[in-house]
Amino acid sequence: MKLMRVGELGHEKPALLDSDGKIRDLSAHASDIGGDAISPEGLSKLKALDPRSLPEVASGRIGACVAGTGKFICIGLNFSDHAAETGATVPPEPVIFMKATSAIAGPNDNVLIPRGSEKTDWEVELGVVIGKTAKYVSEADALDYVAGYCVSHDVSERAFQTERAGQWTKGKSCDTFGPIGPWLVTKDEIADPQNLGMWLKVNGETMQNGSSKTMVYGVAFIVSYLSQFMSLHPGDVISTGTPPGVGMGMKPQRFLKAGDVVELGIEGLGTQKQTFLADR
Amino acid sequence: MKLMRVGELGHEKPALLDSDGKIRDLSAHASDIGGDAISPEGLSKLKALDPRSLPEVASGRIGACVAGTGKFICIGLNFSDHAAETGATVPPEPVIFMKATSAIAGPNDNVLIPRGSEKTDWEVELGVVIGKTAKYVSEADALDYVAGYCVSHDVSERAFQTERAGQWTKGKSCDTFGPIGPWLVTKDEIADPQNLGMWLKVNGETMQNGSSKTMVYGVAFIVSYLSQFMSLHPGDVISTGTPPGVGMGMKPQRFLKAGDVVELGIEGLGTQKQTFLADR
Repeated sequence: MKLMRVGELGHEKPALLDSDGKIRDLSAHASDIGGDAISPEGLSKLKALDPRSLPEVASGRIGACVAGTGKFICIGLNFSDHAAETGATVPPEPVIFMKATSAIAGPNDNVLIPRGSEKTDWEVELGVVIGKTAKYVSEADALDYVAGYCVSHDVSERAFQTERAGQWTKGKSCDTFGPIGPWLVTKDEIADPQNLGMWLKVNGETMQNGSSKTMVYGVAFIVSYLSQFMSLHPGDVISTGTPPGVGMGMKPQRFLKAGDVVELGIEGLGTQKQTFLADR
Repeated sequence: MKLMRVGELGHEKPALLDSDGKIRDLSAHASDIGGDAISPEGLSKLKALDPRSLPEVASGRIGACVAGTGKFICIGLNFSDHAAETGATVPPEPVIFMKATSAIAGPNDNVLIPRGSEKTDWEVELGVVIGKTAKYVSEADALDYVAGYCVSHDVSERAFQTERAGQWTKGKSCDTFGPIGPWLVTKDEIADPQNLGMWLKVNGETMQNGSSKTMVYGVAFIVSYLSQFMSLHPGDVISTGTPPGVGMGMKPQRFLKAGDVVELGIEGLGTQKQTFLADR
């Protein structure tokens, strides 16, 4: 299933995209896309529905594909060639940092370049959505705790991240810096999360063109690894790192300015398109 | 007012502590201590109540003093003498990191030492609870966005934090590593947040005995500073850093083991007491 949330910010309805590309209302069957609705039981219930029996929703704004996210966890430097372009080495175990959940935005919402920013950068990432509480789970069992996948844009302010006194969260958490969606694609639709094409364009020019195949630490390892440090809960989102081609890795470096349009996508997970604007 | 949440985990009732030390039920007047209830309007409404008119609640487990926390933001190395004991220098601007909100616990709940931990450490901190959405606010206006203060225990696993590949969040986010409370003390009761005694004992022995007076960056500065990077929302908690006396700063270093009892408190904000247990 391709689960989604449609409507104005804060008033999104749960919905699904049917096989004809029509958006169908799930309001009668789920309070939102998150928590119980994306548990194994919740997903079974939704899967049993006949999409054609559900009311069609007029297309409009698409919201973030998950509601009630308690943690938005990111994995740093998880593609060896991206690590190289930023001048870092591949870490001996995953680097974890957090994005503020208040940064979460719809996939096509405008992204606000914060005041004082001169180094706003892009990062297409595979998002993993947790469906079941995971604590001390093994790598072999880890995917049992995953509800599905989504496109995640880990927008990053490089000066805030690395030049403003310790810890990356400062450059990762600005409002609108976390577009997720358009869909939460349930895991049964993704044969192999480690073999998905990933791309990102700025003003039509391809900047990133990679694959989740070259991730250093794969999805199952990451879920197991994180669960050794903290419980993962339904609705938590893990953004698993970006392939090469970010602006800070270019010579000369290139960053986003007001008016720029970024498009990105992952095979099977849909696309996002954002206009970057100055935050007033 | 001293606002609190009383009851079993996940079933806490909103309450207040009256001037006779009795716990009074606020269920009829607020759905929980968080969000709207701690906005300036919500607090005015609660303040207009006569505590003696409210039903008394039998004492029992005290929950975390705030519900629905979206962000649990911490300030690192914010006491010059603590920075020195950890071998770090005072940063030129605040160091920000996040604790997972899933780490939040009641003030007297057991704290679980995670599997594989050998360096679980203590940190008494002044917690600041946001009551009104703050974005790009000035230092002069910053306290208008604060609902009140609480004791925050920033439990930290030092090996996870500093020896396990980048970014502190890994050692800060373990389940139960964020006891907050017992009370959210509204700011009208705290004459000067920069002049509060702070202490912590392990098995009865004083380890930390400091004051918020020696914080490098004060509460108003921190709230203003954070709001330049991200919106702060009602219920967000900021833990503002610890005075000297943590285990990693001792020679030899000293860490917590199963069975240890930690007590801590801040002048006017109450006390916490936790037994540390091995997480099975």
